[in-house]
Amino acid sequence: MSVEKTIPYKIYLSEDEIPKQWYNVRADMKNKPAPLLNPETLKPMGFEDLRPVFCDELIKQELDDTTPYIDIPQEIQDFYKMYRPSPLVRAYCLEKALGTPAKIYYKFEGNNTSGSHKLNSAIVQAYYAKQQGLKGVTTETGAGQWGTALSMATAYLGIDCKVYMVKVSYEQKPFRREVMRTYGASVTPSPSMDTEIGKKINAEHPGTTGSLGCAISEAVEVATKTEGYRYVLGSVLNQVLLHQTVIGLEAKAALDKYGITPDIIIGCAGGGSNLGGLISPFMGEKLRGEKDYRIVAVEPASCPSFTRGKFAYDFCDTGMVCPLAKMYTLGSNFIPSANHAGGLRYHGMSPILSQLYHDGYMEAITAEQTAVFEAAQRFARVEGILPAPESSHAIKAAIDEALKCKETGEEKTILFGLTGTGYFDMVAYQKFNDGDMTDYIPTDAELEESFARLPKVND
Amino acid sequence: MSVEKTIPYKIYLSEDEIPKQWYNVRADMKNKPAPLLNPETLKPMGFEDLRPVFCDELIKQELDDTTPYIDIPQEIQDFYKMYRPSPLVRAYCLEKALGTPAKIYYKFEGNNTSGSHKLNSAIVQAYYAKQQGLKGVTTETGAGQWGTALSMATAYLGIDCKVYMVKVSYEQKPFRREVMRTYGASVTPSPSMDTEIGKKINAEHPGTTGSLGCAISEAVEVATKTEGYRYVLGSVLNQVLLHQTVIGLEAKAALDKYGITPDIIIGCAGGGSNLGGLISPFMGEKLRGEKDYRIVAVEPASCPSFTRGKFAYDFCDTGMVCPLAKMYTLGSNFIPSANHAGGLRYHGMSPILSQLYHDGYMEAITAEQTAVFEAAQRFARVEGILPAPESSHAIKAAIDEALKCKETGEEKTILFGLTGTGYFDMVAYQKFNDGDMTDYIPTDAELEESFARLPKVND
Repeated sequence: MSVEKTIPYKIYLSEDEIPKQWYNVRADMKNKPAPLLNPETLKPMGFEDLRPVFCDELIKQELDDTTPYIDIPQEIQDFYKMYRPSPLVRAYCLEKALGTPAKIYYKFEGNNTSGSHKLNSAIVQAYYAKQQGLKGVTTETGAGQWGTALSMATAYLGIDCKVYMVKVSYEQKPFRREVMRTYGASVTPSPSMDTEIGKKINAEHPGTTGSLGCAISEAVEVATKTEGYRYVLGSVLNQVLLHQTVIGLEAKAALDKYGITPDIIIGCAGGGSNLGGLISPFMGEKLRGEKDYRIVAVEPASCPSFTRGKFAYDFCDTGMVCPLAKMYTLGSNFIPSANHAGGLRYHGMSPILSQLYHDGYMEAITAEQTAVFEAAQRFARVEGILPAPESSHAIKAAIDEALKCKETGEEKTILFGLTGTGYFDMVAYQKFNDGDMTDYIPTDAELEESFARLPKVND
Repeated sequence: MSVEKTIPYKIYLSEDEIPKQWYNVRADMKNKPAPLLNPETLKPMGFEDLRPVFCDELIKQELDDTTPYIDIPQEIQDFYKMYRPSPLVRAYCLEKALGTPAKIYYKFEGNNTSGSHKLNSAIVQAYYAKQQGLKGVTTETGAGQWGTALSMATAYLGIDCKVYMVKVSYEQKPFRREVMRTYGASVTPSPSMDTEIGKKINAEHPGTTGSLGCAISEAVEVATKTEGYRYVLGSVLNQVLLHQTVIGLEAKAALDKYGITPDIIIGCAGGGSNLGGLISPFMGEKLRGEKDYRIVAVEPASCPSFTRGKFAYDFCDTGMVCPLAKMYTLGSNFIPSANHAGGLRYHGMSPILSQLYHDGYMEAITAEQTAVFEAAQRFARVEGILPAPESSHAIKAAIDEALKCKETGEEKTILFGLTGTGYFDMVAYQKFNDGDMTDYIPTDAELEESFARLPKVND
């Protein structure tokens, strides 16, 4: 108990303790994630195949499954210093409110203007694009966290940024759009009439409000057809998980400083960028047999790729222009129910995390959104921070684990990732505050219909 | 230059360096701020006179102009640990972008969910209300920063919170309203039909969208007529400036750690809460003749209380139910032009700051809002943080000073207060992004008309 007292509310590392290398968990995986396949030839894609879409240095990172540590360039380290290290917070107030003997910690990534962890990879991808002498980058954004992060990074580096924003978000989240514009990005509602794929989708589905998979197709098309541009992505890819390991490395360094070992590590899971980044260094120890941790992914019941998806090759986008990735997927045409408010709406999952889950190194659970917002509100009122709906999936699971400890009397140490803030999600909060929020779980029939359209390569 | 290199991007104090006492600058003022007057008797108001409106302990702080340091209760210190110490940031990226030899530092108060420094006083006022056994507090809010902060504080302490929100903001800033509701506050558009004053104003000005002065009148009326409630205020009052000195005390401690002495200290000024909090410890040294600093208040050209107001007794509210305060004022009926987007719209100014300005201890300048948003955008793109329009007044002045240094070659050290973030001000940013923002400066005739209605006590 005397040690206990020395743990502050927020554990901050000093600036020179910001990681100088990313950790590549693939180096420690016996079963490596399956390679990306060319959607036409169905052959594994190598460096040259990926060059029309991605920056050279990022392709190297994408394909490298053996180098355990990769240096972070100095200019990126300097950018990290503007908003990192992020605090590791001891949730004293939440523990007290729950009356739990559990010790709860969260790594908070929302203290930057993009409001989430997405900036950790955005600056890297923008940096390598600039290094390669490119004019700019293209991307898609749904809820807008990734687009905002990328706009901040490209503004800082002085390169161009074209964002294709899912139309429904473009219309319902005008403030997100304006943040991106303030940082100098051009923002186009998707599907647009700028691209062949956009025109096709608009013709086939008049009045469609778009999807993430469709916006990806548009952004990729523009990148490959515009001189001096490449496409960048905020989740799913191996390179993104690599960059996001700054989260886990900092969290582990902060815990190590106080001799704390988490029993349970919890993260929300959409495409896997935050979860992968948070757990990687811990997973590395687990893979190497040095330590054991319970690692839990939490996904929305309305978009349950881990828990109800197939582990199969699938398209990363709706337009089927992207490579095929082997991952847990609900099918590239799956779109969560219209009542789904809280991000994490991608149909697939990081191939790295998919392989780790398949091999039994982690668990996955689902949460329904009303319960998620209840947890969010409870957390906000005692811990101060208004969480993003995405992050609140992890809060919900952490609270549940802490309440189990209350029953059993166990003093478990719980670490979860608080990926971001909910300032641009107030439409969803309003629905919750007004008692108008509903839940939806896709039926088996819906999923079967979606699985039926998985590419033939799986047969 | 070797010392230079050791200054990190962000200077963080440790948790045990958070101030344990507030500094009361009045103790060092030769000319004390004038006492509040009873609007009916025109006599100075004492402890008993103020009890129907304010909490007992806060009245003591309001009236105490001799005690230099006042202890911060442990529970408030603990709450401060959830979001403090706030970072003192060296604006390396801004300096580089400007090409200035000046050294720019800013104290950033936006890293908490309320998005501003207002939380520093909100928790104190809510704490003393709870200590006194009250059920709850009432207040007004304009742009919403104060209301949000108070909602967070009352949620944490488990007491009730009734917010009267200027109707135009209630309608144009629904997300601010929802944040407050998420924290359990009731939010009523003002003027409402709940109060005598609200009814009167609605009858006299049908369709009015409200004003801060009117919302104050309503909140005070409800507090004085409801058993177990008191009124709390986010600026102007001596007690608020006292609580906000945590900003300046932390900033000074961080600077002292690195042996840095600012030449110029800049803050935006609406009612004076941030400016007073930031400058107090520095002003103390100046008042005691120990050091000299140039201290600059920046106010909107559309609401120029320091630079064009009268130093006179005036009502703090439109309904004339509040005490009279001697301050720089534009007249209690003054409402800034409808095109004014950026907060800082109160007609008066903190009596403490008014006295200090009157006695020549500080300067005041104005900025027009388009130039303020230009500075905001410039800052956001290099320093990452999207600033509140209020804070951007200080940014504008800091950039101007840094550019003067570029001309003269002087390596001045500039400290400014970055009070908050602009996430809930995207309507204004959109106007700016679209090129639709306009400026307005009140005419002399307008001000004269307003001054003509100052209370007779000044004659």
